[in-house]
Amino acid sequence: MHKGLIVQKFGGSSVANVERIQNAAKRVVSYKKKGYDTVVVVSALGDTTDELIELAAKITNEPSEREMDMLLSTGEQISVALLAMAIHKLGCEAISFTGAQVGIITDTSHTRARILRINTNKIKEELGKGKIVIVAGFQGVTLDQDITTLGRGGSDLTAVALAKELAADECEIYTDVEGIYTTDPRIEPRARKIKEITYDEMLEMASLGAQVMQARSIEVAKKFNVPIHVRSSFSDNSGTMIIKEAKKMEDVLVNGITLNKTEAKITICTVPDRPGIAAKIFTDLASAGISVDMIVQNVGHLRQTDISFTINKGESAKTIKLTRALAKAIGAGDVLLDDDIARVSIVGVGMKSHPGVAAKMFGALAKNKINIEMISTSDISISCIIQKKFAETAVKALHEKFGLGK
Amino acid sequence: MHKGLIVQKFGGSSVANVERIQNAAKRVVSYKKKGYDTVVVVSALGDTTDELIELAAKITNEPSEREMDMLLSTGEQISVALLAMAIHKLGCEAISFTGAQVGIITDTSHTRARILRINTNKIKEELGKGKIVIVAGFQGVTLDQDITTLGRGGSDLTAVALAKELAADECEIYTDVEGIYTTDPRIEPRARKIKEITYDEMLEMASLGAQVMQARSIEVAKKFNVPIHVRSSFSDNSGTMIIKEAKKMEDVLVNGITLNKTEAKITICTVPDRPGIAAKIFTDLASAGISVDMIVQNVGHLRQTDISFTINKGESAKTIKLTRALAKAIGAGDVLLDDDIARVSIVGVGMKSHPGVAAKMFGALAKNKINIEMISTSDISISCIIQKKFAETAVKALHEKFGLGK
Repeated sequence: MHKGLIVQKFGGSSVANVERIQNAAKRVVSYKKKGYDTVVVVSALGDTTDELIELAAKITNEPSEREMDMLLSTGEQISVALLAMAIHKLGCEAISFTGAQVGIITDTSHTRARILRINTNKIKEELGKGKIVIVAGFQGVTLDQDITTLGRGGSDLTAVALAKELAADECEIYTDVEGIYTTDPRIEPRARKIKEITYDEMLEMASLGAQVMQARSIEVAKKFNVPIHVRSSFSDNSGTMIIKEAKKMEDVLVNGITLNKTEAKITICTVPDRPGIAAKIFTDLASAGISVDMIVQNVGHLRQTDISFTINKGESAKTIKLTRALAKAIGAGDVLLDDDIARVSIVGVGMKSHPGVAAKMFGALAKNKINIEMISTSDISISCIIQKKFAETAVKALHEKFGLGK
Repeated sequence: MHKGLIVQKFGGSSVANVERIQNAAKRVVSYKKKGYDTVVVVSALGDTTDELIELAAKITNEPSEREMDMLLSTGEQISVALLAMAIHKLGCEAISFTGAQVGIITDTSHTRARILRINTNKIKEELGKGKIVIVAGFQGVTLDQDITTLGRGGSDLTAVALAKELAADECEIYTDVEGIYTTDPRIEPRARKIKEITYDEMLEMASLGAQVMQARSIEVAKKFNVPIHVRSSFSDNSGTMIIKEAKKMEDVLVNGITLNKTEAKITICTVPDRPGIAAKIFTDLASAGISVDMIVQNVGHLRQTDISFTINKGESAKTIKLTRALAKAIGAGDVLLDDDIARVSIVGVGMKSHPGVAAKMFGALAKNKINIEMISTSDISISCIIQKKFAETAVKALHEKFGLGK
């Protein structure tokens, strides 16, 4: 009885030790026995990737990216072999493949390669023999046979891309939480598991700090309409479906609250208000490889302005140095750093058609005496930069205000 | 200034930690700077392979051999990436390859694959660019792109095979000892490093218990006359050259003494002396995958005989069970097991042309009141099975008798 094809992806925490690998094997086998063709994508065991990065760091602080990929790709290769053994032990046939063997062809951008195409012949052949096919996540190979990796969280991308190419009925992402929550349950115990969320909302949530799934993989899922089910490898409860249009969309203004404490704010004071100044600043930052997130500029009546922007905290020193030189060159004033900030965001496709959501958000923060330092909005999200010490209060207040607890 | 091509192989102990990897890198770079084209073969870091085997054993006691190869090959892949990074750090260009990438094509006998051919184009291309080429030892790939491994000590084979295919001027095998010794220095402190030894002698020594180099790799070196230099990665002293004909061969009767305590002796008593009986016994053992080493049979006047043979101790239980059934079937008597034995052997091409070497050996043992339980001889070696408690005494006595100390 053939039921269709499922792609299942197990993250590092789902295969962190022998017992968990055996659990994952049991789940895979249960699907196979129900009649599904099953393709499994696996991440490296627990903290393997970080341990390998540390090992490399002991040798050099500037590892060649090609060699880094050679090194890191071993993590997933270990996982697929062990999972295959665990499935064999349960009496099922399974075969493991590296990214190279299965034909996941990427460009040559080592450590952040993009998938060019996938040759699914080998997978289809083995599925045809009744085998469970296990594919190493996170990795691919260039046309020259160099091993590449797809960047942090790349196993999600492997799973979604395979689900697309194989026209899978569903792509299950197994993780250590029960699904996507209205906000981080460690901050707000009343946080609720979201049953359905749209690709766009999930993308916003991922880019705003929710770490359940890699953003790029959601983009690909959206582009090709791959149904994703994010769920826990430790329970049989269903998790969160990520889909094109949530059924009850109209009822929900805000679907989730995210919090991000990894950013710092840089302010360049009294910038002359001439055309091209902002362009120069952000072009120079981009050339230096500094990724800028929110940008706020407000021109006053004096033909000069403060420009503020946020960056990843890790790049503060580098950014300050560059920005001070820049400020001097363009005749601006002081450069200030504030790394005591947090970004709190609300996400929901419903806000597209409902005015007043922003006002409601600002009101909830004001009521809690939380000052807003920067504001940024997109079609389906609103973010505020606030002082870090208010972060948890803000999340709880917004969770309450938008009725996410029930 | 181009000086020729060297293949250098670093064993697990030579890359056991970051410091040792850095040392290996320094040595490789020093050769490159002298003007040699350099191809490096690396084993897995320290005990990595054993750790991976243990991990698999926690999941299943009968791992699929294909998946075992998938798992174990990661060890060498980690090593080559780290060594490449360490060489880069020293300012030299280097590039690492897996067995599959470099085109080491093997048959499909997983865990003990045989090399069918090596495609050296990629290596030559990178050498042509002035790069040091680093190849993962121990592994290859089938024509179907399945990863294979070459069996214990397989990195030696990778090195020798590459040296042959690239017509290298020398194949250096770096290890944690200074070379091949006349006997184990932990037993006989007067043991002396051998400057030159023939392939045949080295083969005998390897198969009789000396563990410095894998026997198969010496066979290949002999077949294609690849000059091998076994030496320490911890010193600059030259080690032992393994060559076709040692220059001073005629002077040396015996070149080394080996000791092996890993065997057990099985005796089948009162076996009827009919044609085909021995054939049946050893065919059955072979079918069961039991590797038999020495065999001694002595027919008496009663048309019946005792047959003794040695096996690996680990296979004692299995062998006893099989042999008892066999003995019953052929009308033989008791089956006895003695796992308190040792094999002491003398090796030397000189004994080919000098009669009386065996007598000299037996005499030395007798003088020390050591009883000989079994004797086996080859063209260039003589082995005696004795009681294990006399093992060290026997080695010392023979080392003295054949003047190996000086």
